[in-house]
Amino acid sequence: MKTQEDVEEFILHGHREYVPHVSLDCAIFGYHEQQLKLLLITYPALDGWCLPGGYIKRTEKLIEAANRNVKERTGVDNLFLEQFKTFGDPDRAKLSNFDEDAWFKMTGVRLTDDNWLIDQTFSIGFYAITDFSKTNLQTDYLIMKCAWFDIDNLPKLEFDHEEMVREALHTMRVQLYHYPIGYNLLPEKFTLSEIHALYETLLGKKLDISNFPKKLIALGLLKKLDEKRSIGAHRSPYLYTFDKERYDEALKEGVVLS
Amino acid sequence: MKTQEDVEEFILHGHREYVPHVSLDCAIFGYHEQQLKLLLITYPALDGWCLPGGYIKRTEKLIEAANRNVKERTGVDNLFLEQFKTFGDPDRAKLSNFDEDAWFKMTGVRLTDDNWLIDQTFSIGFYAITDFSKTNLQTDYLIMKCAWFDIDNLPKLEFDHEEMVREALHTMRVQLYHYPIGYNLLPEKFTLSEIHALYETLLGKKLDISNFPKKLIALGLLKKLDEKRSIGAHRSPYLYTFDKERYDEALKEGVVLS
Repeated sequence: MKTQEDVEEFILHGHREYVPHVSLDCAIFGYHEQQLKLLLITYPALDGWCLPGGYIKRTEKLIEAANRNVKERTGVDNLFLEQFKTFGDPDRAKLSNFDEDAWFKMTGVRLTDDNWLIDQTFSIGFYAITDFSKTNLQTDYLIMKCAWFDIDNLPKLEFDHEEMVREALHTMRVQLYHYPIGYNLLPEKFTLSEIHALYETLLGKKLDISNFPKKLIALGLLKKLDEKRSIGAHRSPYLYTFDKERYDEALKEGVVLS
Repeated sequence: MKTQEDVEEFILHGHREYVPHVSLDCAIFGYHEQQLKLLLITYPALDGWCLPGGYIKRTEKLIEAANRNVKERTGVDNLFLEQFKTFGDPDRAKLSNFDEDAWFKMTGVRLTDDNWLIDQTFSIGFYAITDFSKTNLQTDYLIMKCAWFDIDNLPKLEFDHEEMVREALHTMRVQLYHYPIGYNLLPEKFTLSEIHALYETLLGKKLDISNFPKKLIALGLLKKLDEKRSIGAHRSPYLYTFDKERYDEALKEGVVLS
């Protein structure tokens, strides 16, 4: 939404274009060179930070709505998006610190009790992992700030978004054992140490060096190249690359990687 | 719902008690002695079978609504219920073979285009696994039949319920590698062969005999008893039981079991 008029129209009549009672929130993780970050935004009238999210158009598929939300904030299209959980307890969106005047100043509309945005809303959680160094963050009229935070140093989150982040991390970590990862997060050719570091960073713990790479090679997902990288005296490890066909198949079918 | 009056009230005014646009569906898997089944129901006016499900009361938590639905059909309370995915594409509930007259005969109400049940609905999928020999299946005024079907021999399903079953099975199978299973599905004391057979049946494939039991023992989830069962000449394997405290902890925290 670009202007106050867009926002007013959305608040007053958004339920014509969007399905009421259902929204989505995206935990977009960012990886780059052994750092794991999370994308957060702020709205007017709220102190804390939130996961980016929004409502679902009556004409679009759920995955299209999630993709639209991610693209609007990061500029990245068609990220691999996975649902992790839907949240819907009666009091999930209760706010203690909503600043009504700040909201009115920004939007020009006071939220009355019969407004469609006030009623109980279920939120479908999606997660994605992207290379944060390749994103192009965007705010808009209602989204004041948009920024990457280190996963171990998150600010105060609004609503039930702390629980969402915990659940997203948990699901992402379980799924690392069943879906390949790394395409678009690593250079096209990489060493076993680099992919090992990716797994350690995403799982947030030290691993036996051989586990994941060994399984990836055994399943034909990693191909050894006839090429080495020189990284110091007497150290020139072989380079590897993904077999993209098998990778895509494993993303669809699932595998056992531990 | 027990009477036609209950059903009429639900159709005409249900959105006062229940949140519109959001429902849930439960894939209840049944295990007993190496058989895997799925619970299905029928509604009036539809040919095919459906997963049991329903709407969520405005006063109840999501997990409470899922538990209520499972209990109403099976008589079993507090099953371990896990979300597997939420479904919400615009045309997901389109029906080609809805018998309006049969519906009217059963309910006394014709469904008009502005009825709250007609508008786009998202459905949150839950799955559970129970011992089908210990359930007590219940129909009601709107649920004509309720029965267990072999997982490899399911009848025609309505709506997007075939996709739901596929996704529920997939998630259940992935989660077998991360959460313990077997409590309430096996006798209190069991042999390693029995728990091995449970895993093979749920995963729908042959496994290396030692994998899961070995990991369960290594993690302290299985305890070897000082007791054997005689199952034939020269064959008396040791009995095992779950360490319930560690089992519950692993259900909460997740583990790596492969």
